[in-house]
Amino acid sequence: MVNNQDMSERKDDAVGRIASLYGLTPKVETAINQAVMDDEKRRARTLMAPLHPADQADLIERLPLEVAGKLVRMLGDDLDAETLAHLDEQTRDEIVDVMGMAALARQLPDLPTDDALNIVEELEQDERDDVLAALPAEDRILVEEGLSFPEDSAGRLMQREVVTVPSFWTVGQTIDFLRNEEHDVGDFYLIFVIDPTRHVLGEVRLSTLLCTQRPRRMSEIMDADFRLIPVTMDQEEVASLFRHYGMVSAGVVDEDNRLVGMVTIDDVIDVIDEEAEEDLMALAGVGEASLRSSLRETMQGRTGWLAINLITAVIASMVIGLFDATIEQLVALAVLMPIVASMGGNAGTQTVTVAVRAIALRQLDNLAAWSFVRRELLVSFLNGIIFASLASGLSYVWFGNVDIAMVMAVAMFANLIVAGLSGTIVPLGLLRLGVDPAVASSVFITTITDVVGFFVFLGLAALYLI
Amino acid sequence: MVNNQDMSERKDDAVGRIASLYGLTPKVETAINQAVMDDEKRRARTLMAPLHPADQADLIERLPLEVAGKLVRMLGDDLDAETLAHLDEQTRDEIVDVMGMAALARQLPDLPTDDALNIVEELEQDERDDVLAALPAEDRILVEEGLSFPEDSAGRLMQREVVTVPSFWTVGQTIDFLRNEEHDVGDFYLIFVIDPTRHVLGEVRLSTLLCTQRPRRMSEIMDADFRLIPVTMDQEEVASLFRHYGMVSAGVVDEDNRLVGMVTIDDVIDVIDEEAEEDLMALAGVGEASLRSSLRETMQGRTGWLAINLITAVIASMVIGLFDATIEQLVALAVLMPIVASMGGNAGTQTVTVAVRAIALRQLDNLAAWSFVRRELLVSFLNGIIFASLASGLSYVWFGNVDIAMVMAVAMFANLIVAGLSGTIVPLGLLRLGVDPAVASSVFITTITDVVGFFVFLGLAALYLI
Repeated sequence: MVNNQDMSERKDDAVGRIASLYGLTPKVETAINQAVMDDEKRRARTLMAPLHPADQADLIERLPLEVAGKLVRMLGDDLDAETLAHLDEQTRDEIVDVMGMAALARQLPDLPTDDALNIVEELEQDERDDVLAALPAEDRILVEEGLSFPEDSAGRLMQREVVTVPSFWTVGQTIDFLRNEEHDVGDFYLIFVIDPTRHVLGEVRLSTLLCTQRPRRMSEIMDADFRLIPVTMDQEEVASLFRHYGMVSAGVVDEDNRLVGMVTIDDVIDVIDEEAEEDLMALAGVGEASLRSSLRETMQGRTGWLAINLITAVIASMVIGLFDATIEQLVALAVLMPIVASMGGNAGTQTVTVAVRAIALRQLDNLAAWSFVRRELLVSFLNGIIFASLASGLSYVWFGNVDIAMVMAVAMFANLIVAGLSGTIVPLGLLRLGVDPAVASSVFITTITDVVGFFVFLGLAALYLI
Repeated sequence: MVNNQDMSERKDDAVGRIASLYGLTPKVETAINQAVMDDEKRRARTLMAPLHPADQADLIERLPLEVAGKLVRMLGDDLDAETLAHLDEQTRDEIVDVMGMAALARQLPDLPTDDALNIVEELEQDERDDVLAALPAEDRILVEEGLSFPEDSAGRLMQREVVTVPSFWTVGQTIDFLRNEEHDVGDFYLIFVIDPTRHVLGEVRLSTLLCTQRPRRMSEIMDADFRLIPVTMDQEEVASLFRHYGMVSAGVVDEDNRLVGMVTIDDVIDVIDEEAEEDLMALAGVGEASLRSSLRETMQGRTGWLAINLITAVIASMVIGLFDATIEQLVALAVLMPIVASMGGNAGTQTVTVAVRAIALRQLDNLAAWSFVRRELLVSFLNGIIFASLASGLSYVWFGNVDIAMVMAVAMFANLIVAGLSGTIVPLGLLRLGVDPAVASSVFITTITDVVGFFVFLGLAALYLI
């Protein structure tokens, strides 16, 4: 008994230890909620103050809008600028409306350029103008320049603040420079060694700098095998590069190869998450919706997709309609036909999902594409044999009719081959055409496998059974 | 004309610049392939040497196995240990077989513990024993200890090498210590301030250390708001924590809260990628397969899932079979019934995908779950009204029969509500039961919506139309 209790206490301890890593506990959440309801401004502030900005943002996202708005008004300029950066778009939009543009403009200069830009780019045009007008000139110029880069490019992702030194400096000079200057760079992991025209000659990691004697020159210790990101590079390309080389930070250069900023890993993680989410949601036909989207946004994404699905379902039904006389004579066909369509749809979805993921991870170049198509066709062929046998055996047992079993076998095999073919060719084709394969592939595939499934099954039945 | 040419040249330039960020160009790949075929050992080595380990790994993955194996034998101990760490599991397994366990054991000490462990944990038991026996004692102990932690835990993810200093040291002392000692930590971003029993008192970022005057004490500049990861924490929890707080590196502690290692962001990115992939693949029923899986692995994942799908399709068919007499009298029912089932299946997949993603991002606690269920039901209700109207209007136009149109309306509405209900309740229920909702949800949902769709539509038809 004692032992048991010990063990369960230890388990509770472990769970408690994990939960306690997050600053926002249900207790704190309830207390802050209560303080806001009771108009206890000081108490609300005291409770919020020790929370990490990420936890403050989490809390604000979870509170009902009116409570969150009241809390933000209570906090006033005590609201941490970083908290705004951590909010999801939807909630930030609402909170910014509550704060007003003037208050927002007071917060922005405390953020690194990438976070400030990220907030400003989501505003409506008139709000954007108001905020920009209220920003100090130097911040305004950086934000405006950031907005001039294409959406979802490295230029939008980068922070402008970087540490640069000339190559003839020693380690000692560099450290003295870092100690004596005012820096506004936040946390950084790299120092860029540049020439007088801001071309990058090399990079020095902070850990290398710290482990080197003062008299050595930066040019001796710099890493010359580095990668610079063009400011117009798409953020998904940036994420690929970071992932491939295991980078933590990288310089960003303009079209003349001059250093203009740097991208750090935390921004890249957001991109990786977004990208994975987009693919998953697109394949399921959910649009951009998340748990925190409004009802209207959710409906927009879902309803449109279901409407497309209604059209494709009707097309498949019309194929069935072609054979209504056949079905009337042999109702077993109506019973069995969904099996053919469903197996094809599932096999096609499997293939297309592997293709979409491989495309997202940049694994499908021409060579790989060819071997992918071959392997998928082989898989389809093998699965075709397996499931044609199983389904036709089952049909025979069920309806005791060899002819129906034969038709089932041929239709199932044909549909699984078609599923494998279309599951590879459709996403690769869409990629060539510049369409995101994740968005359009699955609707194409299931339409194809439904139509082919019904047509081959019922067509063969009409020819040979009736 | 001149202008056009200019523009296309500039565009080519931009494409070239992006491609040139990757060291492995098709030209280099062909040249190395050729050198291996021609048995030109020196040329192959010269061509490989300047490539980043990530690119070397990419090349080895892309070469046919016999060429890759020959290349690895040519390189011998010149093969970079880091290249092994970058290989995907499948290829690494094959390459390690070619190298032999003795050569592998010579490489491992060059890697940080996390990478070495990652390689060893994938070996077969007998290979593992051989490698461990050939490792120097200190490395062996670390790897064996690592293997004692649960799979997919922080203990498997962490590197053991960390930099620690006592709190009374000054910045100057710390830097002198870093300069004068031999370190085997690789790149690092944090220094841990600990007490004599290895309990962590605070963390100092390297950028902070570099920007601070020598006489200041570590205790004054350390960040006391930090998070330590229990060594047994699941890697997905670790990823959540990094994501939530935007961390780059974190200390790992044993059950007595003593510092035993650290996890860095590059390992976490791998976890995030794996996690996203698992959800996507599980929802599509593809198992663990990727582009690089063997045919056998691919078949295992796919065929099992298709077999389950065959069973569920048969169950749905049996429902149809119950109403064969009804269908015989009114073939229009056979034509229309797949529309009801397909719309339900799609709506259910939409909901379940949002749920699975939210669960992966740890957004679905009790409070959020309740509001999620409510919102999904509202969406189902609205979509139910929209698509019941559309589908019944369409049925009326098609078959000119008001009764069929009414049955279609009721069945469609009912099935979309069931899709919304099951799309929320099934994943949340599986989560409670400790089953990964991504794996089992979608098969459950489509079975439910098929069965309900066919049953309601045909059942109502049997009651009211015949």
